[in-house]
Amino acid sequence: MQTRTLGELAEYVNGQVKGDPSIQIKSAATLARAEEGEISFLANIKYEKQIETTKASAVIVGKNVTTEAKVPLLIAEDPYYAFMQILVLLHGHRKHKKVGVSKVAFISDSAKIGADCDIHHFVTIADGAKIGNRCVIYPGAYIGENVKMGDDCIIYPNVSIYDGCEIGSRVIIHSNATIGEDGFGFATHEGKHHKIPQIGITILEDDVEIGAGCGIERGTLGDTIIEKGTKLGDLIAIGHGTKVGPHCLLVAQVGISGSTTLGHHCIVGGQVGITGHINIGNYVMIGAKSGVINNVTDGKIVLGSPAVDAGIAKRAYSMLKYLPEMRKTIRKLEKDIEQLSPKPQSPDKTG
Amino acid sequence: MQTRTLGELAEYVNGQVKGDPSIQIKSAATLARAEEGEISFLANIKYEKQIETTKASAVIVGKNVTTEAKVPLLIAEDPYYAFMQILVLLHGHRKHKKVGVSKVAFISDSAKIGADCDIHHFVTIADGAKIGNRCVIYPGAYIGENVKMGDDCIIYPNVSIYDGCEIGSRVIIHSNATIGEDGFGFATHEGKHHKIPQIGITILEDDVEIGAGCGIERGTLGDTIIEKGTKLGDLIAIGHGTKVGPHCLLVAQVGISGSTTLGHHCIVGGQVGITGHINIGNYVMIGAKSGVINNVTDGKIVLGSPAVDAGIAKRAYSMLKYLPEMRKTIRKLEKDIEQLSPKPQSPDKTG
Amino acid sequence: MQTRTLGELAEYVNGQVKGDPSIQIKSAATLARAEEGEISFLANIKYEKQIETTKASAVIVGKNVTTEAKVPLLIAEDPYYAFMQILVLLHGHRKHKKVGVSKVAFISDSAKIGADCDIHHFVTIADGAKIGNRCVIYPGAYIGENVKMGDDCIIYPNVSIYDGCEIGSRVIIHSNATIGEDGFGFATHEGKHHKIPQIGITILEDDVEIGAGCGIERGTLGDTIIEKGTKLGDLIAIGHGTKVGPHCLLVAQVGISGSTTLGHHCIVGGQVGITGHINIGNYVMIGAKSGVINNVTDGKIVLGSPAVDAGIAKRAYSMLKYLPEMRKTIRKLEKDIEQLSPKPQSPDKTG
Repeated sequence: MQTRTLGELAEYVNGQVKGDPSIQIKSAATLARAEEGEISFLANIKYEKQIETTKASAVIVGKNVTTEAKVPLLIAEDPYYAFMQILVLLHGHRKHKKVGVSKVAFISDSAKIGADCDIHHFVTIADGAKIGNRCVIYPGAYIGENVKMGDDCIIYPNVSIYDGCEIGSRVIIHSNATIGEDGFGFATHEGKHHKIPQIGITILEDDVEIGAGCGIERGTLGDTIIEKGTKLGDLIAIGHGTKVGPHCLLVAQVGISGSTTLGHHCIVGGQVGITGHINIGNYVMIGAKSGVINNVTDGKIVLGSPAVDAGIAKRAYSMLKYLPEMRKTIRKLEKDIEQLSPKPQSPDKTG
Repeated sequence: MQTRTLGELAEYVNGQVKGDPSIQIKSAATLARAEEGEISFLANIKYEKQIETTKASAVIVGKNVTTEAKVPLLIAEDPYYAFMQILVLLHGHRKHKKVGVSKVAFISDSAKIGADCDIHHFVTIADGAKIGNRCVIYPGAYIGENVKMGDDCIIYPNVSIYDGCEIGSRVIIHSNATIGEDGFGFATHEGKHHKIPQIGITILEDDVEIGAGCGIERGTLGDTIIEKGTKLGDLIAIGHGTKVGPHCLLVAQVGISGSTTLGHHCIVGGQVGITGHINIGNYVMIGAKSGVINNVTDGKIVLGSPAVDAGIAKRAYSMLKYLPEMRKTIRKLEKDIEQLSPKPQSPDKTG
Repeated sequence: MQTRTLGELAEYVNGQVKGDPSIQIKSAATLARAEEGEISFLANIKYEKQIETTKASAVIVGKNVTTEAKVPLLIAEDPYYAFMQILVLLHGHRKHKKVGVSKVAFISDSAKIGADCDIHHFVTIADGAKIGNRCVIYPGAYIGENVKMGDDCIIYPNVSIYDGCEIGSRVIIHSNATIGEDGFGFATHEGKHHKIPQIGITILEDDVEIGAGCGIERGTLGDTIIEKGTKLGDLIAIGHGTKVGPHCLLVAQVGISGSTTLGHHCIVGGQVGITGHINIGNYVMIGAKSGVINNVTDGKIVLGSPAVDAGIAKRAYSMLKYLPEMRKTIRKLEKDIEQLSPKPQSPDKTG
């Protein structure tokens, strides 16, 4: 950790200082917790009032923030990006201890390990696997037969990668995630479920990050693909043969069935479920907990279960609570109209 | 991998050839990806048009498919089952390397290991455990005290099976699944939650398959049972004392609370939640993302949260989007009726 | 396992016996399965009829149960708590074999291990980690750098605890759970997602229990905290910087986004999703499968997605099935009113 002046930080992120640029900044913290020497960040406009009370020595804000607070500001075009850059500068990412290749790891004679890898104890690297340079593989991870892995990957403890899967470069896989397990495919015949060989693989392209405890099934015939730069949260299940395009964000506990395709730059909220054999376009946003059962075209924002246009869904779901009242009113209206309607005269009166 | 003629394949699956039976088939692929020498399969009627453009050398179809495409067809009674049979014939299931019993596995002196097992490195088999013949146990798996396991099981890397659980024959458990962890049972007294000993076990019967990352709690007093032939997808949570009947299919991320019973041949969609202490009959189908809070009788198809008859649910949920319009209309109708109703005359006018 | 008389058990739990106090009780079982010598428990009023047919030698009931059954009763103020006490007395919690510190565990020279710990094979305890007294760490568990752990913890197989996290005393973590993985934080800039260093940690306070396969992200700047006595079921995802207050119960598959705060004694049903940056009060109950998107005040019971007052939600969701009928009726009413309304006369008639 290294101390920088606010001015240096502003220059580093291409921003402007409002206040004293000579202030020393040694680390970062939330507005509520920051102390002297720390820089903070207005992550959410909800917290704008905290700028007035924070003990931070400086706060990163966007150009649209118009606080009168006395705390020095670092005004940035893209304040969240600036915050990320400064966090990396001040703290860096996790440092991985240089351990080399453990003697208590099992590495097959036919496996190939690139230069400068750190392979921890109790790791298994099976026959024919090929690991690139500078990969870090933590204890208990299992790298199956003929797995191919690029450079600079980080595989956290107890990850399992099944045979034949392909992992790009700079891929991060968090603990207890499973890559390339068998797809959920059975042919039901006379009441019994017969396992279908799953001969596809799972491909994670460059710069993919997979959260803890995820399961990314291998394909039955085709492959399951998570394309470059896409990030998955924890406990996500991806079905066999599904393709998630590049630069998507999938929040925790999402489930996507098999043979579905997502385009690029999609954002999928937590606990969303997406059915199989459909197409989701590019730049699609899917609200948390939605259930998507139909194709979604480029740029759409959908919500609800089944998911529809988010604006419509928000209005509709917010009215659910009025259903009992609506039903009561409809019944009253029926009675009112019955009373207003001309009564058919009874025969004896017409006689 | 072995080459067969289309005629041989048809004979093998009891189907008929439409076209040249002497065509050589060496593997299988999807309609979109298949090349010469590959057989494909019409998995979903949505893809029927692909039969006209596929480069596959043959396509497996059902009797009801009436394509005019020139590609040779293998017509089968149950085409999905035929496809499975052919995939097994051409590709087979995963081959497990014969590794014998690793010296870097820990196997208790009181554990019993059957004939021809493959126990990989870093496996623990605790006191009193009994493993049948020809089981494959991958690195990092933990088999607790007194666990009983039948023959021909496959336990993938980093699976944990708690003490005393019983695993049948031909059971497959995918990576990072947990079998027999403590049930979620606490007695709350004066604001504190006191752990209730979970003295039941988890039983997985013959031919059960458990997806990656599942958690199947042990019972509190009775046992948690997954009956024969039932298949679970990834990331499924089964509560203590629940019984899932034979030959069910549970798709990924299903959650079932404790002490619930499912009959046989149920199909439970992804992300379904089922409450505790209820009974689900036989041949029940539960649509994805449903929340089931009441008993369901044999053969019912339910959907929604709370789940009701699927036909009713589909109509109801498809109308959610009209709620704002409906509410507006109701208000208008109220006003209209008010205007139509005879006004009570004011006292001064009647004077 | 030790035999006790019903009278002894009643005295132990401060209850009264109705029947013969000299009956010998050796274990506990469900009403349906209990045999002679076993005590059972009326867990759910739904099962009251089973008291008449149970073969149990005694049944624990609350003061409000008025059965005429002949089976001896143990009447307790808080029958579930009494049941827990008796189960602990008769069966105890899981006994952990005394294995000491395995020579096939890897323990850093700079790690400190307390007295009487059992560290199993294939465990990694990284640099600077500090483990308290009498902890049990099962095979394949990973304890990262500088992790601090109190006394009497139980860490089940293949758990991963990332660097720097703090674990209190008497904490139980079930298999394949991940503690302190990176929070899901990315700054998106020019279409790419840039990883934000996650410099906070995860803190599990005293007496916390974490279910199998959970993922509890570390904080970005602040920490993720599960406070004392809180119990999590299986497959739960907790986002970065979220604080779950003391003595809460979270049922399986709950997901909570980042920077949200729960008070004390909350009960969160299975598969609930809670959005980020909100506040949930004390003693809040959230019905299974709910989606909570707004703050919830103390003592509220909420349900639905989006979650509202549970009473309102129950009525509203139970009426969903009437939506098609309601829409039809509204259309009919529109027509009826149109017919009732005075018709504007056409010009030619007025001429």
